[in-house]
Amino acid sequence: MIQANFTSVLSFHFPPVQYKTTRARKNICNLNIHPCKTLIIRFSFFSTELKMDPDALAKAFVEHYYRTFDTNRAGLANLYQEGSMLTFEGSKVQGAQAIVEKLVALPFQQCQHVISTVDCQPSGPASGVLVFVSGSLQLAGEQHALKFSQMFHLMPIPQGSYYVFNDIFRLNYA
Amino acid sequence: MIQANFTSVLSFHFPPVQYKTTRARKNICNLNIHPCKTLIIRFSFFSTELKMDPDALAKAFVEHYYRTFDTNRAGLANLYQEGSMLTFEGSKVQGAQAIVEKLVALPFQQCQHVISTVDCQPSGPASGVLVFVSGSLQLAGEQHALKFSQMFHLMPIPQGSYYVFNDIFRLNYA
Repeated sequence: MIQANFTSVLSFHFPPVQYKTTRARKNICNLNIHPCKTLIIRFSFFSTELKMDPDALAKAFVEHYYRTFDTNRAGLANLYQEGSMLTFEGSKVQGAQAIVEKLVALPFQQCQHVISTVDCQPSGPASGVLVFVSGSLQLAGEQHALKFSQMFHLMPIPQGSYYVFNDIFRLNYA
Repeated sequence: MIQANFTSVLSFHFPPVQYKTTRARKNICNLNIHPCKTLIIRFSFFSTELKMDPDALAKAFVEHYYRTFDTNRAGLANLYQEGSMLTFEGSKVQGAQAIVEKLVALPFQQCQHVISTVDCQPSGPASGVLVFVSGSLQLAGEQHALKFSQMFHLMPIPQGSYYVFNDIFRLNYA
């Protein structure tokens, strides 16, 4: 069986978004046979002129993150790595496994996030993106939603995806 | 007149804080005569083992930032550089001058920030520190304080200080 797997340095763990790829050069960088004998062709973009749109990245990430949180919280593990940090209401944990264990063990199961604002900025020379979110969290059986603010620092990895390096969450008590 | 000016690679624009300097080697790296003929001795620490305490840095920064905001807003210019970015209630500006002009031109003069929480995390390979703040903002003549959340990304500069590279502010509407 022959399988063509098209990826780029701008692919995502979370859903792909639009980029400004003007004058970016597209190259086949890998052509090899996978151990299970499927043919894998990987595409990458190589150009310093290629510009990512942080706003589109932030929007796609936020939609994916909170949808996953509300429907399959354990699935958030894919978004973190071993160096990732979470500070949840002042409690710090590090590493994808510990972070997801913390999130899964929160004292509520069913919930729904409603996002009010999403701000983002590039974070500097490491090509990361800072995402700052405000919104409300409706817990099942509770009359009033809880206001919250949360920030993420998304960092690129060589394979072309982004992951959450920093995650800080706070409820906004009235 | 002889003047000894002790600095280190961990000095700050804002007030100095405590560090874990275990096993750090202290060296005199400069000994020269200033044009005004004061003797300036500069100390630096050279050790990969020297660890900054992000919590102490964040606490010192937050105290300095909001005290300056509430008493001498124009003085915040020292904390930003040309590459710095501010997103204030969704409005983006870049560069120290534009940022301070934006802050000085906000439609209130007298105000007082009261800080509720300060969270921080190291931001990655560039040795930055993320600071996440929640609190309330009391405007002169207003009955109720406004809740806000704000995040800063502090980045080191070769001279040993930190500056604000990213700054995102949002009011938390009830």
